[in-house]
Amino acid sequence: MNKSPDAQRMEKIVSLCKRRGFIFQSSEIYGGLSGCWDYGPLGVELKRNVKNYWWRVMVHERDDIVGMDGAILTHPEVLKASGHVEGFSDPMVDCRTCKARLRADQVIEKKGIQQCPNCSGRDLTQPRPFNLMFQTQMGAAADESSIAYLRPETAQSIFVQFKNILEVSRKKLPFGIAQIGKAFRNEINPRNFTFRSREFEQMELEYFCRPEEGMELLEYWKEERLKFYENIGISRDRLHVKTVPDEERAFYSRGTYDIEYDFPFGRQELEGVAYRTDYDLSQHQKASGKSLEYFDEETKQRLVPHVVEPSAGVDRTVLALICGAYSEDEAPDEKGKMETRIVLRFHPRMAPIKCAVFPLLKNKEPLVAKAKEIVDLLRPHMHVFYDESGAIGRRYRRQDEIGTSFGVTVDFETLGEKDAALRDTVTLRERDSMKQERVPVKDLPGILVSRIS
Amino acid sequence: MNKSPDAQRMEKIVSLCKRRGFIFQSSEIYGGLSGCWDYGPLGVELKRNVKNYWWRVMVHERDDIVGMDGAILTHPEVLKASGHVEGFSDPMVDCRTCKARLRADQVIEKKGIQQCPNCSGRDLTQPRPFNLMFQTQMGAAADESSIAYLRPETAQSIFVQFKNILEVSRKKLPFGIAQIGKAFRNEINPRNFTFRSREFEQMELEYFCRPEEGMELLEYWKEERLKFYENIGISRDRLHVKTVPDEERAFYSRGTYDIEYDFPFGRQELEGVAYRTDYDLSQHQKASGKSLEYFDEETKQRLVPHVVEPSAGVDRTVLALICGAYSEDEAPDEKGKMETRIVLRFHPRMAPIKCAVFPLLKNKEPLVAKAKEIVDLLRPHMHVFYDESGAIGRRYRRQDEIGTSFGVTVDFETLGEKDAALRDTVTLRERDSMKQERVPVKDLPGILVSRIS
Repeated sequence: MNKSPDAQRMEKIVSLCKRRGFIFQSSEIYGGLSGCWDYGPLGVELKRNVKNYWWRVMVHERDDIVGMDGAILTHPEVLKASGHVEGFSDPMVDCRTCKARLRADQVIEKKGIQQCPNCSGRDLTQPRPFNLMFQTQMGAAADESSIAYLRPETAQSIFVQFKNILEVSRKKLPFGIAQIGKAFRNEINPRNFTFRSREFEQMELEYFCRPEEGMELLEYWKEERLKFYENIGISRDRLHVKTVPDEERAFYSRGTYDIEYDFPFGRQELEGVAYRTDYDLSQHQKASGKSLEYFDEETKQRLVPHVVEPSAGVDRTVLALICGAYSEDEAPDEKGKMETRIVLRFHPRMAPIKCAVFPLLKNKEPLVAKAKEIVDLLRPHMHVFYDESGAIGRRYRRQDEIGTSFGVTVDFETLGEKDAALRDTVTLRERDSMKQERVPVKDLPGILVSRIS
Repeated sequence: MNKSPDAQRMEKIVSLCKRRGFIFQSSEIYGGLSGCWDYGPLGVELKRNVKNYWWRVMVHERDDIVGMDGAILTHPEVLKASGHVEGFSDPMVDCRTCKARLRADQVIEKKGIQQCPNCSGRDLTQPRPFNLMFQTQMGAAADESSIAYLRPETAQSIFVQFKNILEVSRKKLPFGIAQIGKAFRNEINPRNFTFRSREFEQMELEYFCRPEEGMELLEYWKEERLKFYENIGISRDRLHVKTVPDEERAFYSRGTYDIEYDFPFGRQELEGVAYRTDYDLSQHQKASGKSLEYFDEETKQRLVPHVVEPSAGVDRTVLALICGAYSEDEAPDEKGKMETRIVLRFHPRMAPIKCAVFPLLKNKEPLVAKAKEIVDLLRPHMHVFYDESGAIGRRYRRQDEIGTSFGVTVDFETLGEKDAALRDTVTLRERDSMKQERVPVKDLPGILVSRIS
């Protein structure tokens, strides 16, 4: 069977990610660990760019939001109060014939009869809940040791520190607490590359407000978050807002939007923006016996704030960036013959490497020295890469394939050997248009900084 | 009993960390989770500054080092090969009288007789090894589910991805792979605030080289790392280099330095710089059956590289910064009476907030508007904080206590109401000296950026 163009495209993306060092299978030399991924040299830079930009616009550029960074290991009482110990589970079915354990929705239903998708057997158990949290034992003494969970979402660390942070930050409602960090879910069926994995990173904001502000803030944050994705170069027409219908929403939520993206494997959730009411704080207040109320100085009343939560996935955003950036076009090779060019069209803000610097020839010492000087000139302002090996066309192509925004070439004109007027100028090439311009070396930092920030 | 000045100092530091939002006990409202900590609004900024500066000097400013970011969940074969499953343990003793489980070195020895420190009982078991790794179960199907570990160090993710990264980065020896990330150890006795905790963050570099370069690179990295600590404001005379003696070194190491710091609770390890030879790569090559060799194009020979590892703790560095920065001096209060001032004397590079902006009075709209304009002016360049509440002296004091490097005050002179020549100038106050200078608003970004970077 022929693969669909989308499936082919996804295969090319996965292959590029490994070939150029964006994403590797975790523990690969030991056969891999299902649902876990390692980010390589370029992947880690892309991920850093996403996280740093999120922190910049969500925390540093605002007066009403502060950050925090909570532990991954979590007290079981936290997750009992939040409902995760009881309810964070998928229904599972066992096939008594082939012993397979299946998610209930994987069971085949034919004319009212349920069948195992593995062996077509019809002897299946009733569905039973399977908790998706990873648990571990903490402490040394057998009688003292206790269960701890790996947090299934970063949000709960924010709720349990709400009172401490309210006190130290002296914020007034509405205000938010933001966090970036790892979370873990023992997914039964990790799939779609890094999209559904067992270890992942979240960027979550809990924005606390008065009850009457909740619905309006839900709209506000949906719009803000859409702007965020556009500002990192995700095309608006691949983004979709789904209003989560009543029956799919968590029972405590008064409104939830999913921001979805058209991945090659289908339209999938990138971020949820949920109005969670006062559910979490009330639960923790009840379970801990500690007041999580806010004192309103104007009305002189105490209230448990409501909360709107924009919750984004770092890995999903990175994957959306790569999928959106991947493209193939035509460019001339060394001899002028047209060939397919693979380009990652990242927004310069997100590109793992902002600028590559090339001496035209590696065996001409003055070219090499000048190129290294330019690297030193640019380095304080951006992530740069120096490359001297291979024909210049090939070096451009290698950078196109990893999405480097700009290329600077030092040639004999730079040395002033051909034309004194061109001394200390270089060729600046833009990745997508492949247009080249001649610019003075001293202007490079200014020109590039304005284009990448 | 009176507490020692060092113990008193440490108590004040822990109290300040909670009071001002640097560090909170994790899951505090549920009684806390031993050995786990949450970073509050200021702690997370301080931690980000440490990590970003490490990444800048270790990865971005060098041609010979690339980054990566590996998963925390780790395949058991990785940790079998590295020796952690077998050997990463502390010897434990059980007291048969009071049932306490003790680290073997906690047992009291009196005249050749061993006693339980709890109940003074003498009926103790022989020491048995207790593995310090956290383990969990991964996967849904009971028959398929398998053990995974939380990595006890980030280093192993680097070794198992060595070949992939060598291929994609096209680096020649010597070169390094750097990583920042969480690691976990089930410490029997977490202590000294965040110093010895069960969940912590590491900044590790594995610097691969030819065998004959190992000893020289060990010296090189020890010096580089000392410079790093000095560059973030840690005083050189509180840093000590300990040459780890043969009998304390891991058997595969040919040389290890501990970089130690004088904490209030004693001289303790901040970072280890270890020459690990080819132990790790050889172990993984043997266990996985995959070649982890490097092909030397000059000599046309294959070799398993040796490695030098500078391994730093993020949390320990943050704690050293806070302990080193904490100081008390005298400053006049509102009425000119001298009072004790608490100051965190952070290097401006590390300060969580670089500059606070104050309107002299909060009920004068033009002052407030101008101050907010200045916030907008500075924000693209640094983390700034706006504060309008309370007397100006109190606002200074609040910022001193959290280590904000500079304060900018907008007063009636700024508005040009008293002297046209002073229009659009502000008071710039430096935290440590408390010196104030009058500077034009338009010069503020330039002046401040040069002092904080």
